[in-house]
Amino acid sequence: MDSTIPYIPEPTLRRLPWYLACVSRLRAHGVERVSSTTISRELNVDSSQIAKDLSYLNIRGKTRIGYDVVELEQVLVDFLGFARSHNAVIMGAGSLGAALIADSGLRRFGLNIVAGFDVNPALVGTDIGEVPIFHTDELAARRSELGAEIAIIAVPVDIAADVAEKCVAAGFKALWNFTPFRIRTSPEIVVTNTSIYAHLAVMYNRLSAKR
Amino acid sequence: MDSTIPYIPEPTLRRLPWYLACVSRLRAHGVERVSSTTISRELNVDSSQIAKDLSYLNIRGKTRIGYDVVELEQVLVDFLGFARSHNAVIMGAGSLGAALIADSGLRRFGLNIVAGFDVNPALVGTDIGEVPIFHTDELAARRSELGAEIAIIAVPVDIAADVAEKCVAAGFKALWNFTPFRIRTSPEIVVTNTSIYAHLAVMYNRLSAKR
Repeated sequence: MDSTIPYIPEPTLRRLPWYLACVSRLRAHGVERVSSTTISRELNVDSSQIAKDLSYLNIRGKTRIGYDVVELEQVLVDFLGFARSHNAVIMGAGSLGAALIADSGLRRFGLNIVAGFDVNPALVGTDIGEVPIFHTDELAARRSELGAEIAIIAVPVDIAADVAEKCVAAGFKALWNFTPFRIRTSPEIVVTNTSIYAHLAVMYNRLSAKR
Repeated sequence: MDSTIPYIPEPTLRRLPWYLACVSRLRAHGVERVSSTTISRELNVDSSQIAKDLSYLNIRGKTRIGYDVVELEQVLVDFLGFARSHNAVIMGAGSLGAALIADSGLRRFGLNIVAGFDVNPALVGTDIGEVPIFHTDELAARRSELGAEIAIIAVPVDIAADVAEKCVAAGFKALWNFTPFRIRTSPEIVVTNTSIYAHLAVMYNRLSAKR
């Protein structure tokens, strides 16, 4: 099934989950059909953009009727990979790492955190929720038995470079980077950056500028 | 001090924390001077872009010497607002909300979560860490005594619209939205979106496309 998934432009990929949230909400309210115009009104995204984004999916809306809500929701969930389970490990089981392990929302979107790795003796050998925490030295030995391709980097920024290198050496295919360090690695490795703290900087500036 | 802070383009604001992370790392390693060329090599960002971004700050590098590392770190921290305390509340003290309360990293970047709000009777009246959880009905009455201008929206997506409206009515000036719902509100309100799950969609697609 994965082999049928084409490479989609990132802006489209980022909007598709918005459409999913919108359609799920409509379905929960008993709505049966939806047009891109309606989604446009709900989300404040241009309706021609929505039609174009949805054209990547294996679904067609009907003129003057629109999309079947249940079908569109299912096609989006399948397409986005949220219905499949993707095993991942957390590098760094400190504050942010433990928080991500605790966030059951990630599991609902297909992310299955199977282990954490840390060097802190107070954490190694413990469980957070039901997730075991191993020593980082065991990363390479444990990766394939864990069946994990995704490493979530939640370590302090000053060791992010070293940890990312260790993950690549251990055979991980994707790094989800929560640190502000810009990871550079081989082009075969997928790197996704989530800069929570950069968003704070934007928010603080906008608040100050409005005063 | 806030009044001297100009409106900065968002791409610049998002890069400044990368520079801060880089400079903090250099300072920890005892480096005293840094040029934009060095930062460029570390972060994989064009050095003329870095010089332009840093020109928004009240600091000048010296030709052939570069920036003073300690000074640049301090100027960045001040400018980004990470050294000031910004009171915030969490809307939704479930899985993600509790995780954000637990993430001490946010506090290091100036975000001070002073309360959570939820409608779940099992949560209302409890503390998470040292953060009290109140009923959402008390939001308007509690906001000013809490001195909070920022509301972090971590509720289920189907109530995100209602909760955002309640926050604006209660007098919050900034909404940090972790749901995939696109909040539309008056232009005086700062809305910052952090779509963790949209990043998952991008990562899954890139992983599949590489197979």
